[in-house]
Formats: sequence, structure tokens, C-alpha cells
Amino acid sequence: MNEKKLKNIVEHVYQEGFDGMIIKEVNNIGYISNYFPTALTFCLLKEEPVIYTTIMDLELAESTSNIEVESFKSLKDLKEILKKEGYEKIAIEKTLDVETYHKVSGECELVISDLLEKERMIKTSDEIAKIKKATDIAHKSLTEMVSAIKTKELSELKIVYMLGQLLRDNGATGESFDTIVASASSTSLPHSTPSNNIVDYPILVDWGAKYQGYCSDTTRTIVYSEKEEEIFNIVFEAYNKTIKAIKPGMKFCELDKVARDIISEYGYGENFIHSTGHSLGLDIHEEPRVSKNDNTILEKDMVITIEPGIYLKGEFGVRIEDTVHITNKGEVIGNLNPIL
Amino acid sequence: MNEKKLKNIVEHVYQEGFDGMIIKEVNNIGYISNYFPTALTFCLLKEEPVIYTTIMDLELAESTSNIEVESFKSLKDLKEILKKEGYEKIAIEKTLDVETYHKVSGECELVISDLLEKERMIKTSDEIAKIKKATDIAHKSLTEMVSAIKTKELSELKIVYMLGQLLRDNGATGESFDTIVASASSTSLPHSTPSNNIVDYPILVDWGAKYQGYCSDTTRTIVYSEKEEEIFNIVFEAYNKTIKAIKPGMKFCELDKVARDIISEYGYGENFIHSTGHSLGLDIHEEPRVSKNDNTILEKDMVITIEPGIYLKGEFGVRIEDTVHITNKGEVIGNLNPIL
Repeated sequence: MNEKKLKNIVEHVYQEGFDGMIIKEVNNIGYISNYFPTALTFCLLKEEPVIYTTIMDLELAESTSNIEVESFKSLKDLKEILKKEGYEKIAIEKTLDVETYHKVSGECELVISDLLEKERMIKTSDEIAKIKKATDIAHKSLTEMVSAIKTKELSELKIVYMLGQLLRDNGATGESFDTIVASASSTSLPHSTPSNNIVDYPILVDWGAKYQGYCSDTTRTIVYSEKEEEIFNIVFEAYNKTIKAIKPGMKFCELDKVARDIISEYGYGENFIHSTGHSLGLDIHEEPRVSKNDNTILEKDMVITIEPGIYLKGEFGVRIEDTVHITNKGEVIGNLNPIL
Repeated sequence: MNEKKLKNIVEHVYQEGFDGMIIKEVNNIGYISNYFPTALTFCLLKEEPVIYTTIMDLELAESTSNIEVESFKSLKDLKEILKKEGYEKIAIEKTLDVETYHKVSGECELVISDLLEKERMIKTSDEIAKIKKATDIAHKSLTEMVSAIKTKELSELKIVYMLGQLLRDNGATGESFDTIVASASSTSLPHSTPSNNIVDYPILVDWGAKYQGYCSDTTRTIVYSEKEEEIFNIVFEAYNKTIKAIKPGMKFCELDKVARDIISEYGYGENFIHSTGHSLGLDIHEEPRVSKNDNTILEKDMVITIEPGIYLKGEFGVRIEDTVHITNKGEVIGNLNPIL
């Protein structure tokens, strides 16, 4: 993060009436400082921000962080610092655990703030470039093994591992999440756990590459029977029309409604059992969500997924997912054909 | 979990003066019910425990849970349930996020309780069998590629992926955590991130298999130079003597002191920059910890790691780790030679 942007964020902290912000989430600390902790670490965000980490992670912190690093031993130390600096009102993340919350509070008022989530919603050109690169790696990797998936009798887990190897070979630093390979009736579970079963149609792959910390997220479903194709076509229509509907200024819930209405018209509304999508970046799931209850306004340089699906319990499921960069419309990232 | 054990846990909830317990941690819900959520889920632990999950995860929950499952839409529903049932004091996990804490509180008092951590400290014979199986898979997998690690010019990431493939081939359902392969000077970081660098000595591998939800955890360091061997021998002495010192009835901090004293005697106390070990089970890191500040008493059928290390900043590091079952002494799980 450049100095100007960091200064900007700190200004927001003060503008919202806080004396500073305690940050514990690894990706929030990484976003601020370029240091991604591997052990208990806090960042105290203020005019001169400081990272407090344990001695175990000190070498890593000192060699990667753009901001000051100090070592600390326990939460008591953090409490002492807050006391010494005389803070009255400190921002915290909504994910902070209650144990830390109780241990640190008392010295000053701790109030949940979503200012970092909000900051991270709008991606810089550098962040978008990394998400694009991650997506390219992910798409290239699947393309290289589509024919093996269709013709060789591979198990779900074998496909997971072959794809994982290709992602690394093609330059990924890791996977965005545990790859989902589901097949036959297991595709009716949106988050199926891959098994040693040899795959049969439909075959659903939901995978992502990580590139310099940033995630990609794509789902393809390979169908075979007439019924599978019929469901695929409905999901594909919802996918296409939702992406075409994207416009800065509209609400996320309105975008969700586009996909939901189409699937409902075909009588499968009850079978679309999750949100239409989510934002992504350093985390695979970020705010805002493309869901019924999210009233956030779409803005330029947000990056979101569009992933409608239909799940027929005991039969099968179909999901199509791509990552979309919001410009003056919705631009799909990568160019992997949704029909494999 | 059998019915008797579940009943026992519920009794503890009441004995501690609670009207019930809200559980959100995936592995705590899985421990209670055998259902491991993949989407937002709560378990309300009481005489007739109920799992509340979203429609997205309902099929998975209904097909795996041993206890009653209901669908819910949002935290408001949970709050309504608490209100309706007239609870006054509810136990929560220390990891509960402050957002949920604030949203749910108001209807009743929410108090952190470690009763589930305590319950999970003592493993059943079934749990120990699964940890042993996971360890066997992990050890077999590394053994199959030790010679490739030593002789072929592989990168750190390539070793991570080859090992991952072997773990699956040998029956693992996944990895306990992201495998660490560090080499040369990167071994001085306890949590080094694997790179595309071709490995050089020393080569450190910290890896684990998952088997039916349970973790294994092992570290081996392959040394070459005289200096590396000298450090290895000190760590090895600390490792051996700490395991020999294990006895039910002693404190975890006393066990930590055994390793720390030996390493300090050789003048490397400042270079042993983490705890001597941790408990493990469904989670890779569980309570209690083999650390300076943990006064918990060692008990039969706890399962812990012993993993002393010495880290020479800018030079290299050595760590040796095995998983140990506490019986009337410390029994190392698996039989992979610490010297490779």
C-alpha cells in the first residue's frame, strides 16, 4: 500500500471519531503493511501506525512490513499501550473474538467499525491486475486438464490434486480455498467435499488461484444428460442476464434479484439456495454480497462473483461462476468458456 | 459422539450455571453432532440440542448430524429463539466474533466458557486411533519421497505438492495445515512460506495429514553441514529429554521448561522463539499449550506435540516435532526416525 492511501485510511479513522483502530485480521494487517502475520499480531492504526507481533514472527515482520514493527508478549502489553496513550474510543473489526474484546476493553471504549471493509471494497489498479493474473492462471490450469476430466476415469480428489499441481506450475502461490470437485448426485450440495469416487456427470469444479495474496474464483459444471442440459441452460441464462444488468449505481440486492427472478420464472426459485455472488480480493469472501439483504451500491472498481445455481436434492446441481470487474458495466475477468 | 458423552457435556453446561450454550466453531459443532458446517451455523446446546443452519447447508446437515437440525435465516431468528425459551445465562465460545456477540446479547447474559475445550482435551480411543492413522499416512508419505527430496533438485513448492499428492494417495482426506517446506536460510523463519527456490540444506518439512477430521503434525529437518548438525543435536537432545519427562500430573509449563532449559544451557535460549508444543485433535492447535504460561495439568489421553527448535536469524533453523499420546508416560505416535 502506498503512503498516500494509508494516510487516507488513518484520516477516516479520525473522521469517524476514533483515536485509533486495533486490527487483528491477517489480511487487514497485510493490506495496511504488506506483512501477513503467521502468529498472534495486532496493528494499532493511528498517525504513526505500529505492528505488535510475537518474537516468533519478528524476522518475517521486519523483513516485509512497510510500517513500524515492535515485539510484544501478551494482550496485557497491548492493554498497557492503550492505557499509556490515553485513548478513549478505539475502532475494532467485527470479527474480533470476544476473549480479546473483553481482555482489552476497560481501558477505553471499543466500537465495531467497517471502515477497513469499506476501504477494501474499491480495488486499486494493482489489486485488479493481481486478481486478473490469478484468474488467468486458474483458467489456463483447468483448460489443460479438461480433456483428462472428461475422458480419464479420475476420482474427485485426484482432479483436485492434479488441478492444484497445475495451478502451482502455472505460477499460483496457492489456492484461494479448498477446491470443490463434485460429481453426479454430490453436485446437489453447493459445498460438497471431494471424495475418492470416480467422477460421473454432471461434474462441477469450483476453484481459485492465489497470486501475490489475491484470489480468483470460478465454477464450471460439465453436463451430459438432457435434464442436466435443461437446468444448465436456465442457470446460464441467469448468469448472462445478471452480468449484463450490472451498472454502477444499482444496489447489490437488485442484482441478486435479477438472477433470482429468472430462476424463479422457470420454477426453480426454491432450488437457488445461496446468494448470487460476493466480493473478493485478499479474502475469497468480502463485503458486499450479491444477496437479498445487501443494500450497498455498486461502484466502479469493485470486483465481485456472479454464481447462480440450481440444486435438485438427491439428483444433481449446476452452478456457473465468474469474477466480474465493475467498470461502467460488468466486465468478466478471464475468457474461459462457461460451456465446457 | 455417543449419546452418553453428549449427555455428559450438556450436564456440564447446566452444572456451570448456564441455561445452554451457543456454539459457532465448525469443529465444536462437528464434535457434538458429526455435522461439519460449510456455511453459517449455530448449535444451541441444551437438553434437546438443536442445530440451526441456512438452507444452503441443510441437505448436508440433515444427512450427517446426529442431533436435530432446523433451518434459520439470520441472527435475528437465533435471538428470537433465545427470547422465546426465556434463557437468562448462556455460555459462548471465546472465539465468538463481537458482531454476533452484540447482535445476540440483550436477550440474556452471554458468558465465555471453556467447557468444550476442556471436554476435547481428553481424547477417546476412537479419536486417538484417528490421530494415529493420520500420523501413519503422513509418515508413510514423507518416507516415500525422502530420497527425491535429497537427490532431485526440487523446489520447496514442488515438494509441498508432491507430498500433498502422496498424502491423498495414502488415504488422507486432506492436510492438517498448509505444509511448510523451508530450506537454507528460510528455515530461520518458524512459519516460512514455501517458494519456487530449489531446496538446499538444511531442509525443513512441517506437515500433517487429516484423517476423518483428525490432524497429525510432524516436523523433520534434514541437515548437512557440521554447524547444522551441531544445532540439530541440541534440538534432538531437548526433544528426547522432553518426551522422556512426560508424566501425567505435571504441569504443561513444567514440560516446556524441560526443553527450554536444555536449549538455554547450550546458549540458544533466545533462539527458541516459540512454545515447546500444543495439543491437537480436530484442530491442529488446541488447548492446552506446552508453553511458559500454561498451568494445566497433563492428563492421560491428552495428545500433544513436542517441537523444540533453534532459529539463527539470517543463517538457518532446526525443528524436530512429533505427536505424543499421554498414557502413564509420553508415547510417540508413529515411528518415523527423527534423523533423515
